[in-house]
Amino acid sequence: MWHKHTIRVRYQETDQMGVVYHANYLNWFEIGRTELIRALGMTYQSLEERGLLLPVTEANMAFRQPARYDDVVGIYTRIVSHSNVRLEFASEIRRLPAVQDSAIRIADAEIGKEGELLVSGGTRHVWVGRNWKPQRIDKEAPDLFALLNANKEKGSETDV
Amino acid sequence: MWHKHTIRVRYQETDQMGVVYHANYLNWFEIGRTELIRALGMTYQSLEERGLLLPVTEANMAFRQPARYDDVVGIYTRIVSHSNVRLEFASEIRRLPAVQDSAIRIADAEIGKEGELLVSGGTRHVWVGRNWKPQRIDKEAPDLFALLNANKEKGSETDV
Amino acid sequence: MWHKHTIRVRYQETDQMGVVYHANYLNWFEIGRTELIRALGMTYQSLEERGLLLPVTEANMAFRQPARYDDVVGIYTRIVSHSNVRLEFASEIRRLPAVQDSAIRIADAEIGKEGELLVSGGTRHVWVGRNWKPQRIDKEAPDLFALLNANKEKGSETDV
Amino acid sequence: MWHKHTIRVRYQETDQMGVVYHANYLNWFEIGRTELIRALGMTYQSLEERGLLLPVTEANMAFRQPARYDDVVGIYTRIVSHSNVRLEFASEIRRLPAVQDSAIRIADAEIGKEGELLVSGGTRHVWVGRNWKPQRIDKEAPDLFALLNANKEKGSETDV
Repeated sequence: MWHKHTIRVRYQETDQMGVVYHANYLNWFEIGRTELIRALGMTYQSLEERGLLLPVTEANMAFRQPARYDDVVGIYTRIVSHSNVRLEFASEIRRLPAVQDSAIRIADAEIGKEGELLVSGGTRHVWVGRNWKPQRIDKEAPDLFALLNANKEKGSETDV
Repeated sequence: MWHKHTIRVRYQETDQMGVVYHANYLNWFEIGRTELIRALGMTYQSLEERGLLLPVTEANMAFRQPARYDDVVGIYTRIVSHSNVRLEFASEIRRLPAVQDSAIRIADAEIGKEGELLVSGGTRHVWVGRNWKPQRIDKEAPDLFALLNANKEKGSETDV
Repeated sequence: MWHKHTIRVRYQETDQMGVVYHANYLNWFEIGRTELIRALGMTYQSLEERGLLLPVTEANMAFRQPARYDDVVGIYTRIVSHSNVRLEFASEIRRLPAVQDSAIRIADAEIGKEGELLVSGGTRHVWVGRNWKPQRIDKEAPDLFALLNANKEKGSETDV
Repeated sequence: MWHKHTIRVRYQETDQMGVVYHANYLNWFEIGRTELIRALGMTYQSLEERGLLLPVTEANMAFRQPARYDDVVGIYTRIVSHSNVRLEFASEIRRLPAVQDSAIRIADAEIGKEGELLVSGGTRHVWVGRNWKPQRIDKEAPDLFALLNANKEKGSETDV
């Protein structure tokens, strides 16, 4: 159950090597997580407004090929595992076939992955409150916990 | 003749004031210019590959209201004036009505402006070569010069 | 009364043109303001902790020469004017003679400007509270207001 | 043999969580590598001018505590291993005791680590040419290879 979100590489994201500066991929991973949560039916922003934060505790990345300015890239994201206190994501950045028009109209949220794999990796997170103390989301946000559980079952059914 | 391009505000673009860090609007202005040139029928990337660069020589910005995380904002851009050596853009950043789904499907490239004005400003540029010496685009890129001239006439016809 | 703060250009700040991406200069202006306020005897962080924010309302920049990776640049900042509700800064970015060692030990906070002028400009600000409503700092932060007044008199004495 | 380089956290590096946005630590790792190479007696910039690039192939990070605006942080970097085609670094970000004055005058390049550990991790790299093909630095840059070998021996002598 990979979620896909499409962006176009910004000039600001390049460096003098002529490719995307490597730290930006971690930023793109974060955009992918935001959009995956939105696709589940909730916004990360609304969680923060309720006092739930999801800081990163670990990150890893493998860089195969660089993205370049004006490339259209797919950010693929899936939930690897979750509990009432933790959440783990896998992420892939893939170069998609070029599109010429200004707006990116590629249908996102598709299951099948396409394009050349550029960067893969993942992040681990814990749920904390505004005081940075760990929170149990089964108690603090049972609606979110239900969405994550439903996503897990859906994933195992489709076996992707 | 305002060109519109729609983006969603990234978490990375916020700062501890809880709003978008002000330098990011200048980055968004640049995205708007890139997409305006694409809408004219050419990519800025292809110009760079031909050895034409368009560095910024002046920029000004007026900040009215801040954009916030997860806002959908419209980047409005138009060409104020151009010659065979210079180019001047006006830019506006506007907050658009919220959209829930992951992909931003709002039709871009529309003429009418909508949404709350957040930031307005503009940038001036000169065409230079890889050696940073000024270039005359009527000679170095007559196809581009023709597109800019056609855009100017189109603009005066519609009188927007 | 120009305040000087020295930084080294980061790889991440370059773009594929091989120079510093233009929006970063606005970021450097902000670092200069932070360090000028520190030199006055107060930290901007302590002002935010007291509920005073200083958002940018206007910015302008003129780009003469680009900074490049690993350059040592001086951020020069001075207060142009201030009132009990407003503050205006002028900023200059200058390339300084190269230094080889890791730490930048150039004495900052000197008055005389040196180096090649790269970018000049300025920013205007208003004092607001956490609710983004304007604040009168002669009432809300008389200690800060006194420091700004003292800086103004010092400036007129030295007539720089 | 940890190399230390000291920076102050920039406002732009914070996000709306009130702490440093996590991707910036990867940027700081890169600053640490740049300064370690400078401390060895060579600049990374001079290597790029000779056509040698050092892209990141893998990165990992563990986030323990967040850095905050205006914190003074030490970037600690050491070479874990190197060959004629590869290079691996370990990195630590530590919060240092606050300093009030504008310039950061803490003596860098010291061996002993101090401060609260915030983030640890590392990066792996390969040497490539401008065409992104792998390069053997014992042939292409024997001076650099000698410096790396000398650093390794120095490290084993001091047994840190």
